[in-house]
Amino acid sequence: IGEAPAQSAFSSRLPFLAETDQLKSVYRASRLLSDQRFENSAEHSWHIMLFAWVLCEYATPGFSIDRVLKMLLLHDIVEIDAGDHPIHGQVDHAAQEAEEQAAANRLFGMLPTDQRVSFLALWQEFEAADSQDARFAKAIDRIQTPIGNLETGGGSWVDYDVTFAQIEERVGNPIQRGAPDLWAWLRPQLVAYFTAEIRV
Amino acid sequence: IGEAPAQSAFSSRLPFLAETDQLKSVYRASRLLSDQRFENSAEHSWHIMLFAWVLCEYATPGFSIDRVLKMLLLHDIVEIDAGDHPIHGQVDHAAQEAEEQAAANRLFGMLPTDQRVSFLALWQEFEAADSQDARFAKAIDRIQTPIGNLETGGGSWVDYDVTFAQIEERVGNPIQRGAPDLWAWLRPQLVAYFTAEIRV
Ligand SMILES: [Ca+2]
Repeated sequence: IGEAPAQSAFSSRLPFLAETDQLKSVYRASRLLSDQRFENSAEHSWHIMLFAWVLCEYATPGFSIDRVLKMLLLHDIVEIDAGDHPIHGQVDHAAQEAEEQAAANRLFGMLPTDQRVSFLALWQEFEAADSQDARFAKAIDRIQTPIGNLETGGGSWVDYDVTFAQIEERVGNPIQRGAPDLWAWLRPQLVAYFTAEIRV
Repeated sequence: IGEAPAQSAFSSRLPFLAETDQLKSVYRASRLLSDQRFENSAEHSWHIMLFAWVLCEYATPGFSIDRVLKMLLLHDIVEIDAGDHPIHGQVDHAAQEAEEQAAANRLFGMLPTDQRVSFLALWQEFEAADSQDARFAKAIDRIQTPIGNLETGGGSWVDYDVTFAQIEERVGNPIQRGAPDLWAWLRPQLVAYFTAEIRV
């Protein structure tokens, strides 16, 4: 009986944990390196947390890897309602933002107040990309796909007929803002790939 | 030219990040809540990090959620070489441990020294389960499947013909050690399920 409040607090967290199982069924435009199938947003989230940690010396000094990992753990949960929007697809940005905000309100709203507030705040910080931690998290979120596409001969760039100018704007800018050394390393390789593909 | 050392350090981390993509193709004995397919170990790792964070008030005081998240981020990477061993399957534990240690040496060995040492140490702490953080991480690793099985009418318990005594030993003990309040909440529900199934 003494444990009743803790246990009911536990039960109140379960629906959120069950609902988030659905992120495993949200598929992205990019494929596994083995090329077997499209990647889902849950396994993508796991992988870019590993990218962030392994590459954390390329973050600007004073950042917190622990906050970045938590941001990346949460960052795609809104896709359960709002879907994945490939960065090279045609998108109505205002509509997408409204959809994702509604998704965040519904999904994080399943949690008790204290966690709802802190999860929403961290997701919003990531989306706004105006803190150092959020900018590094965004850079890492953008870098996995180009590295994979370079390793697999084009990947989603071929599917979406992407140009180097589009990459520089939609991928290069966020990486440059959050992890400039990584962009300095990646850019020449992208130039080489797109030059060879005569897409520059 | 001033950036060359940082950039070569970056290149030296890429093979590990590419190799770990394979965790998305290691399938577990448990299924998604939608029952569509088996769960893979990468998306499982993502989900239990979320479980750990959402349920962190059930950890014993003084633990570090940041260390637990990092442990869970790494904990299944060895399965790329050693495979997933369902806890209700027949297993030669000594052989499995040797296989996982060799896998950890090979996979974390792809990283530069500083990260190899710290990742190996954290993985070994998790495996040994003799720190507070590791015990909580182990408890969380064990709790996702029974919660899912309760929600889906048995799941992998049916496939493996599991008894309550087996659950109590292989699932209950680690949850009790790392998060006793969670076991106090879960146990009566398991008793009710297995009583109804006449498997007690
Ligand atoms: Ca496992």
